Amino acid sequence: MASRTIFRQLFDRSSCTYTYLLGDNLNRQALLIDPVLETVDRDLQLLKELGLKLKYVVNTHVHADHITGSGEIKDRLNKDSEDHIASVISEKSGAKADIHVKQNDVITCGESIRLIVNETPGHTNGCMTLVDQLNERAFTGDTLLIRGCGRTDFQSGSSAMLYKSIHEKIFTLPDNYRLYPSHDYKGNTVTTVGEEKKFNPRLTKSETDFIALMENLNLDYPKMIDVAVPRNLLCGYQS
Amino acid sequence: MASRTIFRQLFDRSSCTYTYLLGDNLNRQALLIDPVLETVDRDLQLLKELGLKLKYVVNTHVHADHITGSGEIKDRLNKDSEDHIASVISEKSGAKADIHVKQNDVITCGESIRLIVNETPGHTNGCMTLVDQLNERAFTGDTLLIRGCGRTDFQSGSSAMLYKSIHEKIFTLPDNYRLYPSHDYKGNTVTTVGEEKKFNPRLTKSETDFIALMENLNLDYPKMIDVAVPRNLLCGYQS
Repeated sequence: MASRTIFRQLFDRSSCTYTYLLGDNLNRQALLIDPVLETVDRDLQLLKELGLKLKYVVNTHVHADHITGSGEIKDRLNKDSEDHIASVISEKSGAKADIHVKQNDVITCGESIRLIVNETPGHTNGCMTLVDQLNERAFTGDTLLIRGCGRTDFQSGSSAMLYKSIHEKIFTLPDNYRLYPSHDYKGNTVTTVGEEKKFNPRLTKSETDFIALMENLNLDYPKMIDVAVPRNLLCGYQS
Repeated sequence: MASRTIFRQLFDRSSCTYTYLLGDNLNRQALLIDPVLETVDRDLQLLKELGLKLKYVVNTHVHADHITGSGEIKDRLNKDSEDHIASVISEKSGAKADIHVKQNDVITCGESIRLIVNETPGHTNGCMTLVDQLNERAFTGDTLLIRGCGRTDFQSGSSAMLYKSIHEKIFTLPDNYRLYPSHDYKGNTVTTVGEEKKFNPRLTKSETDFIALMENLNLDYPKMIDVAVPRNLLCGYQS
């Protein structure tokens, strides 16, 4: 039986970023979540082979660890097509894009793809989690990682806000919902709400203990941040 | 709705190996396909958190690029348990293991997991593809990779045999079957029979052209082969 949604999880080994391809089996429209500049060739080739027509390139937030592929994809595909591929990001991100979304907006692609925007600030102030009720899953960006979470020490990050976002907007989803993050550094590909509620070593702590832990991580300054953030604020384009 | 099978795809960044965890939601038995020595901690932790009891560690073939985690897992888990975790490999591999399987044998774990052994020699003479009819998928080991295939220039490899194995045993599965390989080097996680029949740049060639191509790849001697093969012939143990 063919699934209504075509779904692919794609990995960039250099930045450990996951890009997600979602396509509607019927009308063949597709979107990419968090495409990476270096893997644009791979992603466009796959879209072509699967017979999918890209509609949106969506970023869950302004990334600090890689340059988004959004601008490059738009340049390449809009050049030869009458269809306009639109970049999507949250209003609160402060980034340029064709479409800005906010809490409860719905990003649709055919009838089988309906991503509900859940604003989940904390890693950055413009982070969002995209909830796919039909397929009982959510794309958590850098808000919630598998047994971890995004750092909160730059880009208007806030541990208190992250804790609240996860507990109020992600841990309130049904336990069986699969969660797909923007990154994993240990080779995990997916988790569930139930698992993270029980086993996430950070988010099972009290808010006070979580904030104390996040304040004492002493992480290195992100290698790519000074290159990536200015470009990602412009949808991947150079200023 | 909870799926009958718990399924996890796990990645080892160093060797680009995929390990697969399959568990039965009801009786909580599980098996691992192609575990890697370096990621045993991660895999055992995940099994524990998911409340799964490991029954089998299965190797699709004698790997030349990493040391299997089978021996280490057996040592750790059998020590403290009355249940005997069994290692599984094909008869034709010539490797030591607790259970040797051959064409059409079925590896079961609860009612939801039934893996049918398909002998698919060519990368090595003992390679097998495990077909999961219930979930419409197959684990192809190094026989078929996404838009590629395993090399055939060592370990009794044979391009003619690989071509035959893929065309007769994998490309005859239904087009919608998802295929999960042992490796991917470009960040792909899954493909389908239909896609590979259409887009695999090697296997869409004639047999003659395929053999010529494989003979002229001029690949480097595998870095790990002299360490990995002798150990993997002993289920990961040192001789």
